[in-house]
Amino acid sequence: MLAAGPSKKKRSGEDIYRQACDVITGGVSRNTVFRRPHPFYASHASGCYVTDIDGVEHIDFANNMASLIHGHAHPAIVSAVVEQLMRGTAYTMATESEVAFAQLLHERVPSFERIRFVNSGTEAVMALIKAARAFTSRTMIAKAEGSYHGTYDFAEVSQTSNPSNWGDIDEPNRVPLVNGTPQGVIDNVVVFQYNDIERTIALLDKYAENIACVIIDPIAHRIGLFRASDEYVDALYAWTRKNGALLAFDEVVTLRVNYGGAQESFSVKPDLTSIGKIIGGGFPVGGLAGREDVMKVLDPRESKILYPHSGTFSANPITMTAGRLAMELFEREAVKNLNALTQIAKNQVMEAGRVAEIPVSLTGDGSMFRIHFRSKTPNTYREAYQPKEETAVLREFLDFMHVQQHIMMINTGTCMLSTAITQNEVDRLSQAMLNGFRHIKPKLDALNGTPNTP
Amino acid sequence: MLAAGPSKKKRSGEDIYRQACDVITGGVSRNTVFRRPHPFYASHASGCYVTDIDGVEHIDFANNMASLIHGHAHPAIVSAVVEQLMRGTAYTMATESEVAFAQLLHERVPSFERIRFVNSGTEAVMALIKAARAFTSRTMIAKAEGSYHGTYDFAEVSQTSNPSNWGDIDEPNRVPLVNGTPQGVIDNVVVFQYNDIERTIALLDKYAENIACVIIDPIAHRIGLFRASDEYVDALYAWTRKNGALLAFDEVVTLRVNYGGAQESFSVKPDLTSIGKIIGGGFPVGGLAGREDVMKVLDPRESKILYPHSGTFSANPITMTAGRLAMELFEREAVKNLNALTQIAKNQVMEAGRVAEIPVSLTGDGSMFRIHFRSKTPNTYREAYQPKEETAVLREFLDFMHVQQHIMMINTGTCMLSTAITQNEVDRLSQAMLNGFRHIKPKLDALNGTPNTP
Repeated sequence: MLAAGPSKKKRSGEDIYRQACDVITGGVSRNTVFRRPHPFYASHASGCYVTDIDGVEHIDFANNMASLIHGHAHPAIVSAVVEQLMRGTAYTMATESEVAFAQLLHERVPSFERIRFVNSGTEAVMALIKAARAFTSRTMIAKAEGSYHGTYDFAEVSQTSNPSNWGDIDEPNRVPLVNGTPQGVIDNVVVFQYNDIERTIALLDKYAENIACVIIDPIAHRIGLFRASDEYVDALYAWTRKNGALLAFDEVVTLRVNYGGAQESFSVKPDLTSIGKIIGGGFPVGGLAGREDVMKVLDPRESKILYPHSGTFSANPITMTAGRLAMELFEREAVKNLNALTQIAKNQVMEAGRVAEIPVSLTGDGSMFRIHFRSKTPNTYREAYQPKEETAVLREFLDFMHVQQHIMMINTGTCMLSTAITQNEVDRLSQAMLNGFRHIKPKLDALNGTPNTP
Repeated sequence: MLAAGPSKKKRSGEDIYRQACDVITGGVSRNTVFRRPHPFYASHASGCYVTDIDGVEHIDFANNMASLIHGHAHPAIVSAVVEQLMRGTAYTMATESEVAFAQLLHERVPSFERIRFVNSGTEAVMALIKAARAFTSRTMIAKAEGSYHGTYDFAEVSQTSNPSNWGDIDEPNRVPLVNGTPQGVIDNVVVFQYNDIERTIALLDKYAENIACVIIDPIAHRIGLFRASDEYVDALYAWTRKNGALLAFDEVVTLRVNYGGAQESFSVKPDLTSIGKIIGGGFPVGGLAGREDVMKVLDPRESKILYPHSGTFSANPITMTAGRLAMELFEREAVKNLNALTQIAKNQVMEAGRVAEIPVSLTGDGSMFRIHFRSKTPNTYREAYQPKEETAVLREFLDFMHVQQHIMMINTGTCMLSTAITQNEVDRLSQAMLNGFRHIKPKLDALNGTPNTP
């Protein structure tokens, strides 16, 4: 070749996105990374630092939507995966790796009597709902307004309800997410108010005979990252016992909160739990775990298999190896330390809010917190709901954090910490937040009707 | 520690399975690898050879349920994945790798105007169905009796219909797979006879106003690995044009058949295609591809997003890197050579059947073939359907092939070849088949009422 240039021309985000739009719908394979004028593109990452294609380093408080509990490229995980990689990534046989990993999770969380692995949180929740139906021979599920449980259409109902369509608080409208959702989906989903015992129980009673399971996130991210109250979970538990239904926890996000998952802090155990995110050690994963007798619906040894289930990539040894190691490294002490550091971060962020004189409240638990630009901590989905103007301010804040302060957060305004974070990064976070708060203060003041000057 | 033993005790399959049963339902995370008395466990694999935990080497004609087009641990894929691994496995940002891979697929298959990646074939078909509904504002789908399209419950209807429940051939019963499937699912699925133009069109006409898409595998594995006839696909295409519905191909399995997928050999193009398996290069993957205007339902740039979609692990750079490389290596010449070798294998297997004097017919196309112990090639699901006694013989044959002959096949009696296979392995396959045929001949003769002696 004549006059060959550099082996690979460095391209801007704008260039890449232009090409992307010609081959990928919207230029992104997941809407969560979409932004204008174009998405950010990652080059490489290590620990809690992600370097973008322009060479700019960011501190990562998002961790691929909360899925990387040790940050990026943890040496022990990389090395174990490389070893497995050279032995193959998937076979038409079982492997010891899935048994070892299931054993670890089984010992870690008392309600995980039996486990099945799948490939994503979406598949985990779908499997959970199908298992609950198969066990109870009932077809309805009950879920909380505003809760996110993946992309299975039954689980998506009322995920993004808003004041124009959410309807009566006593029996909220069942709002489909996707155009063309069959009425037969909507008819099989009861939507209740999270943490509202009286309304929830009254509504469940109305459909008591048909409800297969009641599903909640014990700390509900999209609702506002609120923890379910002990009394609420007790009431759901009692109701499901009385009415022949199952209590299901979606712990795809929240398993990180305690050594034994968010469920460790409740006095009652769920019958079924969906898991995902951090248990993959950075690789695609999902899982369904729960009571032995319920999980039996999946058992191929039964003469009639109530719920036949397979999956080409389920329990592949790369995910199983990375996941097991990630969870081994996330032992009791590591969980405790990470949660303690997160508490320090929350204190510093609250202090930054006071210094900047803007209203800030934080929700969350364990190694997760979400910021609300409100002086009073919201307690429900409808309270926490952000009108368009508030969302615009949040988006501007997050963009400022990313572009000016080089801090990555989740697009709901949430930080999901990894064990790679140290006090140094927490200090940089709170300083960046202070700058961010000052940046949006005029707009927040305008929104809240507060005069801009004292 | 005192008197430490060997660092890792070698365990038998029986030992591992006993432990597995205490922590994983049925001891397996996917029913396809279940067998009695216990599953086979893989130790490591390279190219077309898989070594089990007892050190026995097997030739792999299954390739993790058809997902490994270059066999195991291809050096170029391993090396590219290791490089990516050290840069991280997933970020809360986009990467160039998804754009490069989408570009490759876009250029390879003319109907892939736009693409979106997900994590499994199940997610791909679910996304396809939801996109078709979102685009047409209709709720029904139409699928073929006996076809497998993953574990989304709408796609599962009549997947395993049998003579006791399949009903009238003119309008087959809609048989749910999982106990507790809502009636609202069943009501939205029309089940037709694959390759039967007259009956299919008559049935589609009956529900014409409500059908969002007609979905077929162009070479339907579970139905019997039959290719759709040109006339059939033309008829479906014409019907969908006339009635405002979409034509969808499930090419999760069949993309391998030609350079441009099985669809390359038809004169009409599908509107939407689900993909998976080989495009992951050994890692969890799925994809949805199709017409730009249809795919727009997923576009986050639209003021009203008809189908909002995300996924934590979708388009992760490990899968994108491995998948792109696998598909790059599977170029025109490689496809041609693999298909030619498969044709030789089919000829040799047919010859083995003649020598063993048992009835054998083969279906399939490209690098896939399925064996039917019938003298007349079946043409439909109902013809190919195996009663329990036939399934028992097939299972005995496959077990003999695995345990005695060290040949791995897919549990339907199917071989899915990889580019790692050479004439040497094909010769060993046909010799093993000959042995296997002789092993089951007495049982086959008894089944067919043929005298055991000439």
